[in-house]
Amino acid sequence: LLCIPAAAEDGHSLWFRHADNAGMHHGTYSPISVTGAKASNPTIAIAIDELQRAGIPGTTRLVVKKDKKAAPGSYAIECDADGNATIKAPDAIGILYGAYGLIRRHQLGQDYRSVSESPAYGLRVLNHWDNPDGTVERGYAGQSIWKWDELPDSVSPIYKEYARACASVGINAAVLNNVNAKPATLASDNLVKVKAIADELRPYGVQVFLSVNFASPKALGGLPTADPLDPAVQAWWKNKAAEIYRLIPDFGGFLVKANSEGEPGPGDYDRSHSQGANMLADAIAPYGGTIMWRAFVYKPSSPDRAMQAYDEFVPLDGEFRDNVIIQIKNGPVDFQPREPFSPLFGAMPRTAQMIEFQITQEYLGHSNHLVFLAPLFKECLDQQTYRDVGTVTAITAKPRGKGPTAIAGVANIGDDANWCGHDFAQANWYAFGRLAWDPSLSSEQIADEWLRLTFSSDPAFVEPVKQMMLDSREACVNYMMPLGLHHTFAGNHHYGPEPWYYVPGIRLDWTPMYYHKADSAGLGFDRTVATGSGATAQYAEPLASLYENECPMEYLLWFHHPAWTDSLPTDRTVWEELCHRFDLGVQQARGFQKTWDAAQPYVDPERFAAVQDKLKIQTHDAQWWHDACLLYFQDINGLPFPADTERPVYTLSALKKVRIPLGLYGCPTRDMLP
Amino acid sequence: LLCIPAAAEDGHSLWFRHADNAGMHHGTYSPISVTGAKASNPTIAIAIDELQRAGIPGTTRLVVKKDKKAAPGSYAIECDADGNATIKAPDAIGILYGAYGLIRRHQLGQDYRSVSESPAYGLRVLNHWDNPDGTVERGYAGQSIWKWDELPDSVSPIYKEYARACASVGINAAVLNNVNAKPATLASDNLVKVKAIADELRPYGVQVFLSVNFASPKALGGLPTADPLDPAVQAWWKNKAAEIYRLIPDFGGFLVKANSEGEPGPGDYDRSHSQGANMLADAIAPYGGTIMWRAFVYKPSSPDRAMQAYDEFVPLDGEFRDNVIIQIKNGPVDFQPREPFSPLFGAMPRTAQMIEFQITQEYLGHSNHLVFLAPLFKECLDQQTYRDVGTVTAITAKPRGKGPTAIAGVANIGDDANWCGHDFAQANWYAFGRLAWDPSLSSEQIADEWLRLTFSSDPAFVEPVKQMMLDSREACVNYMMPLGLHHTFAGNHHYGPEPWYYVPGIRLDWTPMYYHKADSAGLGFDRTVATGSGATAQYAEPLASLYENECPMEYLLWFHHPAWTDSLPTDRTVWEELCHRFDLGVQQARGFQKTWDAAQPYVDPERFAAVQDKLKIQTHDAQWWHDACLLYFQDINGLPFPADTERPVYTLSALKKVRIPLGLYGCPTRDMLP
Repeated sequence: LLCIPAAAEDGHSLWFRHADNAGMHHGTYSPISVTGAKASNPTIAIAIDELQRAGIPGTTRLVVKKDKKAAPGSYAIECDADGNATIKAPDAIGILYGAYGLIRRHQLGQDYRSVSESPAYGLRVLNHWDNPDGTVERGYAGQSIWKWDELPDSVSPIYKEYARACASVGINAAVLNNVNAKPATLASDNLVKVKAIADELRPYGVQVFLSVNFASPKALGGLPTADPLDPAVQAWWKNKAAEIYRLIPDFGGFLVKANSEGEPGPGDYDRSHSQGANMLADAIAPYGGTIMWRAFVYKPSSPDRAMQAYDEFVPLDGEFRDNVIIQIKNGPVDFQPREPFSPLFGAMPRTAQMIEFQITQEYLGHSNHLVFLAPLFKECLDQQTYRDVGTVTAITAKPRGKGPTAIAGVANIGDDANWCGHDFAQANWYAFGRLAWDPSLSSEQIADEWLRLTFSSDPAFVEPVKQMMLDSREACVNYMMPLGLHHTFAGNHHYGPEPWYYVPGIRLDWTPMYYHKADSAGLGFDRTVATGSGATAQYAEPLASLYENECPMEYLLWFHHPAWTDSLPTDRTVWEELCHRFDLGVQQARGFQKTWDAAQPYVDPERFAAVQDKLKIQTHDAQWWHDACLLYFQDINGLPFPADTERPVYTLSALKKVRIPLGLYGCPTRDMLP
Repeated sequence: LLCIPAAAEDGHSLWFRHADNAGMHHGTYSPISVTGAKASNPTIAIAIDELQRAGIPGTTRLVVKKDKKAAPGSYAIECDADGNATIKAPDAIGILYGAYGLIRRHQLGQDYRSVSESPAYGLRVLNHWDNPDGTVERGYAGQSIWKWDELPDSVSPIYKEYARACASVGINAAVLNNVNAKPATLASDNLVKVKAIADELRPYGVQVFLSVNFASPKALGGLPTADPLDPAVQAWWKNKAAEIYRLIPDFGGFLVKANSEGEPGPGDYDRSHSQGANMLADAIAPYGGTIMWRAFVYKPSSPDRAMQAYDEFVPLDGEFRDNVIIQIKNGPVDFQPREPFSPLFGAMPRTAQMIEFQITQEYLGHSNHLVFLAPLFKECLDQQTYRDVGTVTAITAKPRGKGPTAIAGVANIGDDANWCGHDFAQANWYAFGRLAWDPSLSSEQIADEWLRLTFSSDPAFVEPVKQMMLDSREACVNYMMPLGLHHTFAGNHHYGPEPWYYVPGIRLDWTPMYYHKADSAGLGFDRTVATGSGATAQYAEPLASLYENECPMEYLLWFHHPAWTDSLPTDRTVWEELCHRFDLGVQQARGFQKTWDAAQPYVDPERFAAVQDKLKIQTHDAQWWHDACLLYFQDINGLPFPADTERPVYTLSALKKVRIPLGLYGCPTRDMLP
């Protein structure tokens, strides 16, 4: 029977809701024995506490047995004939992961008599784009959870809650601050605060990283240069590394956004990415630290922004230190609702590569739209590259040299009571963690787990709501950017549609026209070798030919500029298919509202109402996208809507006047008129 | 073949578009002979001109032959074996009506070899609610066409165009000014201006009336009172009448709104409506003038506003002079999207009664919504009252004493290029005129005529667009006020939904709650004898019992306060049926958009785009109504939406914040955000 707590359900308990309640109602705790480690080990102690709170029946044995062949954090579960479980692991964190794995299976009613798990990636990282002033870039769930102004004297209990949630899904690293990093990040008084957080996260196995500003030696250290070949610069970083590791012996390392969107980097001194990255890598190598170096580079002069990372990084293959990982966004542009995978994956076989997903929905309706991202993550992870060891997962999960493997997601976490702004956005945090641990999990399996842990296991609830989750990303693509359209967003906030966005003097690659290239002839970015930018050639065969000649509809307007009236395999023209898909997206959003309303009997009133309100906004926005894009494109092509396309209710001129002010925390203000 | 004029089609040519073009392209004019009148008679001259402009083939003979048995304006058309037509009429205006009738039939390809027509009503009146400052109360088509500040020196050509349009559908009287009349209306310098207009309208057979302020003898004449029994007051009105008739010998008479919504009246002196009306009637009787005395009375203290006109006027039956007609709105409240007919009709058998329709869409989406009103008009006209001579038409078309019969519509005309704001609103002007002439015409026939005269005769255009017109009033009822709901409008502008509208101190009968009476138990105004106000008893049997006991669904919430969960003949509950109908209305509005888009090949681009834009607004508003009403009622009843009901996209709190500013000419400003 479902236990509804008396307190208002604000979503803060995440996917622990029933586990924690089970313990609360259990009364007496089951006995737990520990072998191979002290029960007082902070991580073991947490495992014990979690198992008892969850009301795991019988006697549970925790067995730590060192095993050099076993990956850190791996675990096994076995049960005796009476159902008493034994968790075996090579380290304490493996025990904790095993405890969470046992609790999850117990909650879900799954068999755990013979379980063996090992994480696919060594580093499973959340990137927080949190600023020192407490704001979160592209954050839609309140202010930063890191309370820098209170630290180090006051240590918020949220840090442990955060670490617990991360550990429960296997996340083991956090980059605490924005990739657009301030030099003061590395100031001594700030490092003391970082240490305080690291101390809180450590028992949960969450390692702390920092984003660093490449110009820190100048801006913070007072040196005349930040040239990576300058000995004084190298010495400054070595000293800084020593200072950090004195405070935080298990410090993870640095994440670097260099020579990207105005940030400083080695290019400022005519040095390469590898020269910059290696200099930092050398500084932290003695301590086992890792450099994550972002490949997110583009410049206004490029005729095709999608090609630049590949062009810039592939020649550097083999030049990077073992403890450098190139962090590559899943797609070649920037976290769009759908992109083809980045052609960089597999194109640098002698270099460690990691994938960067965006969990926060910068380009998918912020925390207003229900968009379950597991299908987006898996679309990239499962992609066959026809290079190196094959899929994106295989390439990024394969160790290169002595360095770790890693996977990162830009966090969607803030200090909102429910952590993520939208109750269902929690599922994306969950899904990222689960996939970082095991990329072979299906989206359906993850949605199923999360729904049952977070809401209810009643099939009458789970089945339709799970289907809504599984359909939601495609629905978003449909009502925002079907057929491979990308970056038709409003300037700055990336929330609503502005396919017409342009201000005099702006970088063209910051305008939608650069990407959709709509004209009277047709629509889409011609990236073919035959007539376009040639980006298709950045892919290995047979993908290059496929994208060039028989492009899947999903990427049609990404790689091609077909005529509006060209016929598609659906027997619709490009224009008709576009109308059809925008329309479908609106219908899907409307359907989600009905699905959710039918779930009301299974959900506490607070979260029911919160999600219901968000779904309203989503449907409203779907119509807005539908109208804005179709009216704008129709204004260009002069074609009528197909007979079965639902007509716009807004005028193009009215929509062009819409200016959504960025409200508190950068979220668009939604005090709308109908 | 359709002739598209080179000039932009702004809709100004109304239903003359093809007729006028035909003449333009004809070159030589057919011969026309006149018998029994001079060809120079201004009205005959117009008839000749119209026939020639329309390119009527052959020789046309116009024969005026006095006939005391024939109604003024009646006509007959006959043709000889060669197709040469003869129009016979007892007067010149009959010849003009015959000419328009011939042209219409010719345009429509109808047989006119044996036609005989006679108008059902003697006075077919447009009421203009135009103010002396050029604004139009409840006008949504620009400023008044009457340019008082230019008159009498400058006489706009629009007056003749207006009169032509009226005459072409048989309208023969115009009340030039607002029923909320200023005393200065009767000032001598204003009467000279009225004369200038009357001179323009006269050749088209359109008689001029004025709305008068009952307190004019005080406010304008300087008398200490306006008491109708005061000899000085009576003398003032007699002198004023003499002054008017010296200027305008065929002046029609006065329209009076007395003791209604703050206007002065005989009640100010404890005199009855009949005492007030008769005093005015006596003043203009010598000149053949008519008093139209409005029955639109209600007071804040009344427990049921719908009952007051009946209660106040029925006792006065038989007291009015022959040249007084009681002007009764079609329904007992105020021009709602749907009302039952006023129980006053037929309840004063010794008194002349006329119906007052509202052509301007004060309560039906202004000139933004496509709502063809013929079905609304006919619903009332065809209504069997079970009193007197039967239907509302029969009752109002039957002469009482020596006075005329009459029918009135509040005009939807302004100085917008297309006259009515919405191209399809022209159809309501047209429909009113056609029904005032012949109430037996069907809505379908009128829509068919109007569409073909105004747009195109191609069946591929006419059939679907006609169906849209015929469905449009019911669609509006569905998305605004289904099941007998009424007056859930926003305060003041009566445009959008505000079922919650209330401001402290306001008259309760000016708030929606007074009418919908939604509470946790149910919805609707209990007007039964058994438990409510007893308004059902104002109807004759079997209607009284029908409304009391087996109320048609259309009037359910008008007469009853059923429980939300009561079952209806549709096997839905009241709440479910309400949701279903609001939903249906939204779907219908969306369907209109598709229907109109399919009509694009048959319509000039200007009017196509104008109507398309209006349909966007209509669909948008339909959603607004749907969301506002369903969310508001749901907030009261706490019931879930039925599974198949489309969910709101707005929140109740956001909708409650909507304040639509009244823009220029009193139209709501629609510079909306999505």
